[in-house]
Amino acid sequence: MNQKTYNDLDSDIVAARNHALKAVRKYNLIVYQESFYDYSILKKLFGSIGTNPYIEPNFYCEFGFNLHIGNNFFANHDVILMDCASITIGNDVNIAPKVGIYTVNHVEDPVKRAHHQIYATPVTIGNGVWIGAGVNIVGGVTIGDNAIIGAGSVVTSDIPANTVAVGNPAHPIRKIKTTS
Amino acid sequence: MNQKTYNDLDSDIVAARNHALKAVRKYNLIVYQESFYDYSILKKLFGSIGTNPYIEPNFYCEFGFNLHIGNNFFANHDVILMDCASITIGNDVNIAPKVGIYTVNHVEDPVKRAHHQIYATPVTIGNGVWIGAGVNIVGGVTIGDNAIIGAGSVVTSDIPANTVAVGNPAHPIRKIKTTS
Amino acid sequence: MNQKTYNDLDSDIVAARNHALKAVRKYNLIVYQESFYDYSILKKLFGSIGTNPYIEPNFYCEFGFNLHIGNNFFANHDVILMDCASITIGNDVNIAPKVGIYTVNHVEDPVKRAHHQIYATPVTIGNGVWIGAGVNIVGGVTIGDNAIIGAGSVVTSDIPANTVAVGNPAHPIRKIKTTS
Repeated sequence: MNQKTYNDLDSDIVAARNHALKAVRKYNLIVYQESFYDYSILKKLFGSIGTNPYIEPNFYCEFGFNLHIGNNFFANHDVILMDCASITIGNDVNIAPKVGIYTVNHVEDPVKRAHHQIYATPVTIGNGVWIGAGVNIVGGVTIGDNAIIGAGSVVTSDIPANTVAVGNPAHPIRKIKTTS
Repeated sequence: MNQKTYNDLDSDIVAARNHALKAVRKYNLIVYQESFYDYSILKKLFGSIGTNPYIEPNFYCEFGFNLHIGNNFFANHDVILMDCASITIGNDVNIAPKVGIYTVNHVEDPVKRAHHQIYATPVTIGNGVWIGAGVNIVGGVTIGDNAIIGAGSVVTSDIPANTVAVGNPAHPIRKIKTTS
Repeated sequence: MNQKTYNDLDSDIVAARNHALKAVRKYNLIVYQESFYDYSILKKLFGSIGTNPYIEPNFYCEFGFNLHIGNNFFANHDVILMDCASITIGNDVNIAPKVGIYTVNHVEDPVKRAHHQIYATPVTIGNGVWIGAGVNIVGGVTIGDNAIIGAGSVVTSDIPANTVAVGNPAHPIRKIKTTS
């Protein structure tokens, strides 16, 4: 793979990360202390987010500007969206507690790794996806529309639309049931 | 399955959830800021809890009134008990950090899902159970007395009493050793 | 196994745990409220830590004095190092979000377990190790230099140096690629 790496300690990167960290901590503290979900903080930070978001603390992201999120986004407690590359999320997506989406990888070579060389690959989540509790999703993955990822799964490869996927690594086990 | 669904955005549901969120955040903040474990907050919120609880922040539940917990309950850092249906926990139960018990499911049908239709199934944890770190437990599961669930397991079906269970999905691997 | 057990509620143990809890909560709150990473708090608490640490809140440990950490330690959001036995970490180690290292075990026998008998076994992490997001590591494990543990893995046995390991339980799948 022809990885484009960058240095995690470049001053621009550090400044952007610290800017995002301050913003999300402020958001988390305000919800905690005042029960006020001040989405203006997150809307300024994110690349884009649609109407009617619901995001519980403690929420974290890496930069924010690489997040592109649709309408009716729901993220429960302790969700991390590590957007070192873009994370694109459709409409009507539900994310359960303790989920992490991680676009970033350290370079494997230990010498380069010690010198903070990292690379990142995008994640795409379709419309109507439901990601169960405690799921980890790594960089480079696409999850198709309406898919359901079972609790505790580790998603390391693409998941087709309209399937239920579970396990470590996550694999589709059946089509979703439609009754409407 | 003849699921009884409800709408996650019904005003009664939202009010009960927000009431619980405010209470647990208050509890978490007081422990954090004053090192005072003010169990009076949680006792008012829970359906019932026995003597001698120990609950570390950040603790979360969904409603609280569906929690029925025995004596000597121990929950370490970052435990979530999502009690959309009842969660019944016996005496002398230890829950390690980052454990989640999730009674709730979104309906599979994507149209109904987008309309916030959800259903919940109870979880029952016996006496003397020890749940290891990072375990996820889903709705409908019963864990028998004295069982041990290994770290990182995903419990999707019943676990017999007096067994050690591990894995994703969790399965019993042997009887517990008794030496007393 | 000839386990040396101790009682988790002995007054010395409780005092040491509470001392550490207050310190890490203070550290977490200061970062949260002032964006100031006051490592002097953690340096006083830890057995030892080298130059140039970076530790995101919410960080937790059990005692702190059993932590022996090298230079350039990086721990991202929500890392728990439960150092009931020693946790020894080399130089240039990266720990991703939501990782837990748990040296402690409750005794299996349910009568002794209800009487708070526990035992702990050390964990050793070599130089240049990268531990992926959401990984759980249990007591007694050694992870060799430069190893990479994939996201969501559960490490229950030793991992050789210079390998990539994934899964639940984690097992080596290949050598790391060196390009320098």
